[in-house]
Amino acid sequence: MPRQVTAFSNATVKLLRSLRDKKARRAEGLFLAEGLRILTEARDSGRLPEIVAFSDEGARHPLAAEIIDATEAAGGDAIETTADILSKMSGKDNPQMLVGAYRQPEASVERIDRAKAPLWIVAQALRDPGNIGTILRTGDAVGAGGLILIDDCADPYSVEAVRASMGAVFTQEIATARWPEFIRWLRSGDGQLVGTSLKAAQDYLEAEYRQPCFLLIGNEQQGLPADYEAQCDLLVKIPMAGRADSLNAAMAAAVMAFAIRASWR
Amino acid sequence: MPRQVTAFSNATVKLLRSLRDKKARRAEGLFLAEGLRILTEARDSGRLPEIVAFSDEGARHPLAAEIIDATEAAGGDAIETTADILSKMSGKDNPQMLVGAYRQPEASVERIDRAKAPLWIVAQALRDPGNIGTILRTGDAVGAGGLILIDDCADPYSVEAVRASMGAVFTQEIATARWPEFIRWLRSGDGQLVGTSLKAAQDYLEAEYRQPCFLLIGNEQQGLPADYEAQCDLLVKIPMAGRADSLNAAMAAAVMAFAIRASWR
Repeated sequence: MPRQVTAFSNATVKLLRSLRDKKARRAEGLFLAEGLRILTEARDSGRLPEIVAFSDEGARHPLAAEIIDATEAAGGDAIETTADILSKMSGKDNPQMLVGAYRQPEASVERIDRAKAPLWIVAQALRDPGNIGTILRTGDAVGAGGLILIDDCADPYSVEAVRASMGAVFTQEIATARWPEFIRWLRSGDGQLVGTSLKAAQDYLEAEYRQPCFLLIGNEQQGLPADYEAQCDLLVKIPMAGRADSLNAAMAAAVMAFAIRASWR
Repeated sequence: MPRQVTAFSNATVKLLRSLRDKKARRAEGLFLAEGLRILTEARDSGRLPEIVAFSDEGARHPLAAEIIDATEAAGGDAIETTADILSKMSGKDNPQMLVGAYRQPEASVERIDRAKAPLWIVAQALRDPGNIGTILRTGDAVGAGGLILIDDCADPYSVEAVRASMGAVFTQEIATARWPEFIRWLRSGDGQLVGTSLKAAQDYLEAEYRQPCFLLIGNEQQGLPADYEAQCDLLVKIPMAGRADSLNAAMAAAVMAFAIRASWR
């Protein structure tokens, strides 16, 4: 049976609230996801929260009740609490009435089975958690296997990234690695590393993409470092028609990922 | 010669600060853009601010000095002020050292010359100013003529939208219209109206796009209303590979816009 918790000082409430902070997420190995839609997505992908918090209203939906029951049956913790406390957890005025704390999967790139998908997205030093979440969502839509985060990226388990991913944080594999570690792993098996560069000669629509394809997206401001570009198997450019010289990083990822998929049809 | 202004109570400072607010932007017909890169972009597109504010540091760059001189030569107002005041204008801790207030172009769709570009983006009830700015940036990159905002969209002249547009707010035409007004204008000339819909039978890669093409993007949550879809000349779907059933609105715009351009090569 779920416990009733109405005190901000309660240890579970404090733990859940702390997960808005990156250090706490790392220390606990947990992250927050909010809302019936995304928790259902997680359940459909075989993932249950370790802790689920909900309001009276949040528990009323049959799907929510199923998730709460399943969480408890799996040994997780379920607490019924107030809208006020849920609002403090999510940092929103109109909070979701159902919030789950999930275990972060192991981050090592070694864990990735590259044969599982024809396309993987690799992001380097992306600073915006919204971009990370959006790229996860794009990866899900295009049938990518997951997202590999290189160097210092924003946390894919931040509330902003999880929200922008619209549940794809549960369907996409997520790994993090430094560049040398990533390259070692990549070269230990099959894989075409594709970078985009304004200096590249080859048009992105005319290139030949091979599976598994690793699409490398650079930092929002600087793009890819020259020595990373040098290690790509293929460098392509998306010709820009306008005055501005670049696309938003998440847009470039979407345009490239869908063009690569289209080239395989 | 620029005036020195260091008081928060100065009328020009107050006016510039007020432009973070939509009502004030509408009343004044002005909007803010920040930073040397974007103000240079504006100047290269033939646009000068009516008011330019800058710090000692901001005026030091030769391009900034040119913009300040040109603004004054065109009868505009130039004020030298403090980093603290610039920070209050932009709402950022690390403000840009150069800020301009620009006249909003007339918003009427009647003003648009559709023959100027092969592609136009039409967004319906988009709520996120970041999405609006990103779509403007995508439009610039893909060679679209501009963005037509239907029904109640976020303000394209908000600080967030202008920032996300990376200068494309100056290179793309921007118009706003209610749906009946837009349709009347559209049908008064050539133009193929293309909507994306998960219910559409035709794959977006197999459709035939005609110039001028008007790409219609629906609201982030609801997508397009059924009666708007019914008025499209072409409905296409982007097949989704994953569990989630949709792309982010700005991503869908980018994938569609680049696929349409690719189909014309």
